[in-house]
Amino acid sequence: MLRYWTAGESHGPALVALVDGFPAGLAVDKAKIDAELVRRQGGYGRGGRQRIETDSVSFLSGLWHGVTLGSPLALEVINKDAKIERLEEVDRPRPGHADLPGAIKHLGGVRAVLERASARETAARVAAGGLARQLLAVFGIEVAGWVTELGDVVLGDRPGTLPELRGIRDSSAIYSLHPDRDPEVTTLIDRIGKEGDTLGGVVEVRVDGLPIGLGTHAQWDRKLDGRLAQAVMAVQAIKGVEIGLGFEAARRRGSQVHDAIHYDAAARDGTQLGFTRPTNNAGGLEAGMTNGQPLVVKAAMKPISTLRKPLESVNLRTKQPEEAAYERSDVCAVSAASVIIENVVAFEVAAALVDKFGGDSVEEMQARWDLYHEMARSR
Amino acid sequence: MLRYWTAGESHGPALVALVDGFPAGLAVDKAKIDAELVRRQGGYGRGGRQRIETDSVSFLSGLWHGVTLGSPLALEVINKDAKIERLEEVDRPRPGHADLPGAIKHLGGVRAVLERASARETAARVAAGGLARQLLAVFGIEVAGWVTELGDVVLGDRPGTLPELRGIRDSSAIYSLHPDRDPEVTTLIDRIGKEGDTLGGVVEVRVDGLPIGLGTHAQWDRKLDGRLAQAVMAVQAIKGVEIGLGFEAARRRGSQVHDAIHYDAAARDGTQLGFTRPTNNAGGLEAGMTNGQPLVVKAAMKPISTLRKPLESVNLRTKQPEEAAYERSDVCAVSAASVIIENVVAFEVAAALVDKFGGDSVEEMQARWDLYHEMARSR
Amino acid sequence: MLRYWTAGESHGPALVALVDGFPAGLAVDKAKIDAELVRRQGGYGRGGRQRIETDSVSFLSGLWHGVTLGSPLALEVINKDAKIERLEEVDRPRPGHADLPGAIKHLGGVRAVLERASARETAARVAAGGLARQLLAVFGIEVAGWVTELGDVVLGDRPGTLPELRGIRDSSAIYSLHPDRDPEVTTLIDRIGKEGDTLGGVVEVRVDGLPIGLGTHAQWDRKLDGRLAQAVMAVQAIKGVEIGLGFEAARRRGSQVHDAIHYDAAARDGTQLGFTRPTNNAGGLEAGMTNGQPLVVKAAMKPISTLRKPLESVNLRTKQPEEAAYERSDVCAVSAASVIIENVVAFEVAAALVDKFGGDSVEEMQARWDLYHEMARSR
Amino acid sequence: MLRYWTAGESHGPALVALVDGFPAGLAVDKAKIDAELVRRQGGYGRGGRQRIETDSVSFLSGLWHGVTLGSPLALEVINKDAKIERLEEVDRPRPGHADLPGAIKHLGGVRAVLERASARETAARVAAGGLARQLLAVFGIEVAGWVTELGDVVLGDRPGTLPELRGIRDSSAIYSLHPDRDPEVTTLIDRIGKEGDTLGGVVEVRVDGLPIGLGTHAQWDRKLDGRLAQAVMAVQAIKGVEIGLGFEAARRRGSQVHDAIHYDAAARDGTQLGFTRPTNNAGGLEAGMTNGQPLVVKAAMKPISTLRKPLESVNLRTKQPEEAAYERSDVCAVSAASVIIENVVAFEVAAALVDKFGGDSVEEMQARWDLYHEMARSR
Repeated sequence: MLRYWTAGESHGPALVALVDGFPAGLAVDKAKIDAELVRRQGGYGRGGRQRIETDSVSFLSGLWHGVTLGSPLALEVINKDAKIERLEEVDRPRPGHADLPGAIKHLGGVRAVLERASARETAARVAAGGLARQLLAVFGIEVAGWVTELGDVVLGDRPGTLPELRGIRDSSAIYSLHPDRDPEVTTLIDRIGKEGDTLGGVVEVRVDGLPIGLGTHAQWDRKLDGRLAQAVMAVQAIKGVEIGLGFEAARRRGSQVHDAIHYDAAARDGTQLGFTRPTNNAGGLEAGMTNGQPLVVKAAMKPISTLRKPLESVNLRTKQPEEAAYERSDVCAVSAASVIIENVVAFEVAAALVDKFGGDSVEEMQARWDLYHEMARSR
Repeated sequence: MLRYWTAGESHGPALVALVDGFPAGLAVDKAKIDAELVRRQGGYGRGGRQRIETDSVSFLSGLWHGVTLGSPLALEVINKDAKIERLEEVDRPRPGHADLPGAIKHLGGVRAVLERASARETAARVAAGGLARQLLAVFGIEVAGWVTELGDVVLGDRPGTLPELRGIRDSSAIYSLHPDRDPEVTTLIDRIGKEGDTLGGVVEVRVDGLPIGLGTHAQWDRKLDGRLAQAVMAVQAIKGVEIGLGFEAARRRGSQVHDAIHYDAAARDGTQLGFTRPTNNAGGLEAGMTNGQPLVVKAAMKPISTLRKPLESVNLRTKQPEEAAYERSDVCAVSAASVIIENVVAFEVAAALVDKFGGDSVEEMQARWDLYHEMARSR
Repeated sequence: MLRYWTAGESHGPALVALVDGFPAGLAVDKAKIDAELVRRQGGYGRGGRQRIETDSVSFLSGLWHGVTLGSPLALEVINKDAKIERLEEVDRPRPGHADLPGAIKHLGGVRAVLERASARETAARVAAGGLARQLLAVFGIEVAGWVTELGDVVLGDRPGTLPELRGIRDSSAIYSLHPDRDPEVTTLIDRIGKEGDTLGGVVEVRVDGLPIGLGTHAQWDRKLDGRLAQAVMAVQAIKGVEIGLGFEAARRRGSQVHDAIHYDAAARDGTQLGFTRPTNNAGGLEAGMTNGQPLVVKAAMKPISTLRKPLESVNLRTKQPEEAAYERSDVCAVSAASVIIENVVAFEVAAALVDKFGGDSVEEMQARWDLYHEMARSR
Repeated sequence: MLRYWTAGESHGPALVALVDGFPAGLAVDKAKIDAELVRRQGGYGRGGRQRIETDSVSFLSGLWHGVTLGSPLALEVINKDAKIERLEEVDRPRPGHADLPGAIKHLGGVRAVLERASARETAARVAAGGLARQLLAVFGIEVAGWVTELGDVVLGDRPGTLPELRGIRDSSAIYSLHPDRDPEVTTLIDRIGKEGDTLGGVVEVRVDGLPIGLGTHAQWDRKLDGRLAQAVMAVQAIKGVEIGLGFEAARRRGSQVHDAIHYDAAARDGTQLGFTRPTNNAGGLEAGMTNGQPLVVKAAMKPISTLRKPLESVNLRTKQPEEAAYERSDVCAVSAASVIIENVVAFEVAAALVDKFGGDSVEEMQARWDLYHEMARSR
């Protein structure tokens, strides 16, 4: 069972992810995790804080000579802007944030809540996912994410291998697959920013190289579609999750949705069992299980809740109408969201991989991976 | 901690939900659960099986004189069509179902998988939710769901109280809020059915009467938005989940999304704390917590995967192309999905209620509910 | 992840165990589970109820032609004495039972609590364990338990293979390994019973054929010693748990406790890796992992809490001193406890087996079992 | 739900406990946690390492101005002896440790396992428990532990209030309640140490001030006796757990075991409901619930597994017999065990308290505590 929790406040000493159940024997490339952390801080439209911090992970546990021990890994991302003790109470809750419901729930103040609810916490999730995807890579499972919509601009998808798409995406200022349209989008961000307003968008994550049979159909709380939806919806500011066609599937008739099953003896090689699917409308998941096709997950991010031109709020002490508090914030963080969703999806897929192939050592997992595919092919 | 699992195959002896952590002292109205079960079997477009069964729950445990004991409740729904031992192996996996990935995952056959993966299992989830909503009702929390889209027909929402809307919905053959448009939809279903094809749709669930502060912002796996997304996406055939505006939120700017916070001393009464929100784009959840507004969840159901005019498949024994198997099935089950989603949402909300107010006895929960609102109001 | 919950009251319709995560492909022998259930009802010193019931399991789910599907199994044991609706409230809580703390905790009555707290519930746990041990048997893992102390009579252990010891035990009226001493014990039980008093005792469970490496050292909540201790201590009336030497280990010096490690190339065969241990003071567990030696667990059962010559209590309505209630009960149920502990231990070991070798199908588990031992031997 | 995991190796950078679900509003006294950490390092018979380290906790998250936020707390204990990268592989597994089963399980080396399996990890558990007990203290719940046996010396218990007993214990070099017998014990430790051997012992923990009704009887995995047994048995080197009379209960007859229920209207005050028990043989737990009496847990610690005069082992590379490895170690750590068990028990009790009274804020918990006792008294 591969699992994790995070800890840490936005301006506290550090963010921490504690990852338990990670297999022994993986040589961890810290630089790759840092690259994800830095990507999370980027994307056009980010505010000042991202320039203060340059996130980097350190391991408080779980490694010896850079190789996982099979023991829990405590990943730490130091907050360079660790000024929590100097910060003051906030009286004017910001609509869209945890501020109001959190303060009431805990019968306390707003600061106590917003520090933890801040999207800064996602740095820890990215670190955990950045570790998990290195386990996936051993099995040839690759993950990548990008922005498909930003505000009302639809950028969309693009065919290609993940390395190809990753290359294109990395040349886009907003992490889309259409860098040629960057100017259109950055102009929009600039304009909205000047108006004191904010933007959201849609991100897509694709996972290639998956075996058939991760997840299960047997119990609701272990279905992989449900697990992914939880992980994605639990990311700050996410209000919608789709797998494959998503809502579009609801609008088509069955014959236009379900992916026919073909068989191609020539496609029977390595992990391939010979079953091919001419389409992938299911997004790689049928009945809570991977079906060997690319996993496709989409998420809708609402616009940033902290507006420079603040929304109407109420002073919690006086109960008088006042403008919501403003703390330095971004105009748009959809690019960052694509990194976050990419990494939380990676973690859930890695957890499903460990469920299927065991979690004691990478060496044993690999042998079992081969064994499974041999057994499946010989049927 | 209120939690549940289900058991049961489509044609096995029974479906079972085991509900653990339910508070003592609730007088259970079995008829209300049965009403949900019967509603799940209804809706225009259902096939023959729904006429064989008339589902009804019985309690194997957890009640004394009809009142919950605080011990686990085992809810049983007998399968009148319990013919599993007479059924045969299936060789031609149906696209969109668990058939192919499940058979490979377990290195076994298709029948072994499809019996459990069948949406018949949702009868157990509806039973569990039908119980949970009776706990919610004690606190004035009401849940209702309806169909907002069916195939490419957009029916949409409607203002009103839940009792009003429930009344309208119950007069619609397809459980929509626009019964006047039933003919348009039933004509579509008839036509598609004749073509051997199937239809999906979109359902919406609303929960009224919620307090502020169910769920949490503090840990990703306890956030209520994530919990709801998991529960909903883990329902058979669901491919998308939205909270509040959902994907629409991604396309608007922040000032058009976030719900302003107002204060109205006159609205300070009972569980009301005086904070009002002129809009509810957040769908009642901010940062994984309820904010006192109605909870609004939408789900996209793909069309039924079993088509009378079957899709292309492969015979698993011969590896030759053949048409997918056909087992008696429905043309459209979106109405049923509205019942299922309504009840799984009810369960998760009840679980969050128990997390916040405790689960030993209804009497104590009620006293704590009052206490919490008094404490919150006196700040 | 193999896991289970139970439901059911002492005089309710049925007891239920819902077992989730059980591998596909095991042909279940229902008679063997029934044999455990009947053994649980036996042993010298049992009262009248055991003669009313003859427990037998039925499967509400999870099987097709007697073979597990990989889906959850709902095991039902019908209560022949299902008179809960005719039973009356209890005003005089019995010391040692849930009666007083449970009634206060739930702000309710005693009956509501005692029905669930009754050791009758263990029939469901035995059914679950009786299923789990059939999975163990596929791998040559055998489990057996017996009584080593009854009241102040120390009967002790005995060398032998598990089939041998099981044979001896089954010839003892009290399930001990010393049937020749049965008269001494049954005389004691008779005498104590006439005095209106009750007896407890100590039981021991041994598991043979275990591989090295079930469980883990890496996280406290996944250590197998802790898991076993929880499962055993959570059985009604258990007040102590030991692994291996248990408390005796605390009284010896290190050189007299730890089991030397030897190596015998001739013992390298099948699942044997060649490491031998001349002693087994650790009881088969080192640092929360199996070490290839027999697992040995002991449990102390307190005397039955319902005495025919009742203890001092208080009438909860009047608050006046009265004798505790008496419901038909046993003088001694230590023999039954040996069956219960045997089966809950079997379940936890099976769960650890599934953790290590996966839970999709028995066929795959077997191939992985072989693979693991080959890999371990080739180092 | 209050829960925690730990991370960290013996010679890695740090030990970490991540505590999730801790209520908001507690002013944390770091010095009190440090005092527990230092006590854990003490006790007569400890080796050199305890002199290198002086453990101290720091908070990476969860606090603002020293007060808990309701967000997860990451507690860090830096390893001053963090030399893991300079350490070498170990070829001669030490009997009694994780060395052999762990290396085989992970198909790896011994060092990779022993670093995590080391009892050094318990510093993180003590830190978590040291935090949890500060929550208990708000409700007047006090925890203390001491050594009752060391090797074959029986020191035993003693009547008194916890403050009294804590004072006595703190004047004992081995943390017993009989400091006058310290010379007898320290002489034994010296003698055994000179012989290159090690010692174990028995520790006892008492919790005073508990309300009635923590824990539950309703589901096996939520019973407090089982939870405590798991937490205690999962501590390094623990081989036995008892609650109340423990194994002694098995040897007495019922009338000599169960604690009569009396009622004393004069004892009805504050949290007291008037029910008194002239004895406490149950150790404060009946049917998995607290009964208002002191909780009494005992644990048996085996002697330290690393002996200066090493046990027989096998070189894993050559498979030739060799002596087990020796790393600097203690002769006896039973005093430390008393601190560890004290703190893991404190954590489980705090978790049960949060289950019963909620975990959002201390303020709300206190109001609910009062409410519960009022409701219970008014029946």
